[in-house]
Amino acid sequence: MRLRNVKNKELIMDSSPFLIRDPENYKGKWCDYFSNQHPIYIEIGMGKGKFIIENALKHPDINYIGIEKYDSVIAKALLKVASPLPNLCMIRGDAHAIDLFFDHEIDHIYLNFSDPWPKNRHHNRRLSSKIFLEKYDSIFRDRKEIEMRTDNRDLFAFSLVSFSQYGYQLDEVSLDLHQDNLPDITTEYEDRFSFSNCPIYYVKCSKL
Amino acid sequence: MRLRNVKNKELIMDSSPFLIRDPENYKGKWCDYFSNQHPIYIEIGMGKGKFIIENALKHPDINYIGIEKYDSVIAKALLKVASPLPNLCMIRGDAHAIDLFFDHEIDHIYLNFSDPWPKNRHHNRRLSSKIFLEKYDSIFRDRKEIEMRTDNRDLFAFSLVSFSQYGYQLDEVSLDLHQDNLPDITTEYEDRFSFSNCPIYYVKCSKL
Repeated sequence: MRLRNVKNKELIMDSSPFLIRDPENYKGKWCDYFSNQHPIYIEIGMGKGKFIIENALKHPDINYIGIEKYDSVIAKALLKVASPLPNLCMIRGDAHAIDLFFDHEIDHIYLNFSDPWPKNRHHNRRLSSKIFLEKYDSIFRDRKEIEMRTDNRDLFAFSLVSFSQYGYQLDEVSLDLHQDNLPDITTEYEDRFSFSNCPIYYVKCSKL
Repeated sequence: MRLRNVKNKELIMDSSPFLIRDPENYKGKWCDYFSNQHPIYIEIGMGKGKFIIENALKHPDINYIGIEKYDSVIAKALLKVASPLPNLCMIRGDAHAIDLFFDHEIDHIYLNFSDPWPKNRHHNRRLSSKIFLEKYDSIFRDRKEIEMRTDNRDLFAFSLVSFSQYGYQLDEVSLDLHQDNLPDITTEYEDRFSFSNCPIYYVKCSKL
């Protein structure tokens, strides 16, 4: 992704009530942060935040945590949150932010347009690789649910096999999400891509 | 599929040593037919036979049974078998030919470019639907293996979910088989399609 700098990003980040500055203090206590026992859904690599913000607005009974590693991108996401949203917060971090959660804290993981890491020697860095699925196991509550969208063919084929081999059951698959007309909430990246001829692949899978 | 009539198809079928005229007599005795205990692979809807004939030539230690319902198509397949092939035979029939096999007789099923049955009310007729997976269960030996190729996006997405929900693990997936350069043996249909821009989808899955 090409990143455009955002002016005053530090100021935006410092002044936003949605950015958690000390996420390590909430490990095992995310319910306390939200002051309720609602399910917690996380998006690893939330980009500019459209997807998670619209989800938070639509589902007030679900708590959402967006994770993004780039300051300029997270600043844009923070600017997008217009109204108070008690069920949304954001964390600055990469996929290792998974370590900021404790056993049985998370109900659902979104992997939207993750880095495809195309080289064979980097496949372990894919967020659907066995290494990450093991990490997710350690934070999921009971039923483990992952939803993935990508425009990368190789990453999608790899992920289907990886999920399946790790014991996930595929609940929904689309090989052209926008053609199949499934999503009501989209990401910024997806909106840009839907004008091209590249299909967007989608899978929702779960494991008990 | 548009069918061209084949002249003398009855004569071809009557005179071929590869077409089993009384398959019901071999139920539970397919090993006797082949006079060995080698694994048995079947292709349901073998079309003009290129795929199964080339497989039989390449793997003499595997027995192959091709099933095809159209006389004109099976006649073309029979004409293709130039040399004696003790590990190959063909059956005239549709998917219900599954009933011609007994418990623990079959090791592997190929579903190549099966009818996609696009209408929702016909989904049960898809060869990857639960109804058929149950039938396959009744004839598979120990490890159940299915390989599917199709150019139909909806059928493929449906099949991935159906296999997974039925307990199959996905071992290999390709969303553009010819781009990924996997197959060494192709079907006639596939050869024609590979010149177009339509991807060929592929999955190999297994269940213990």
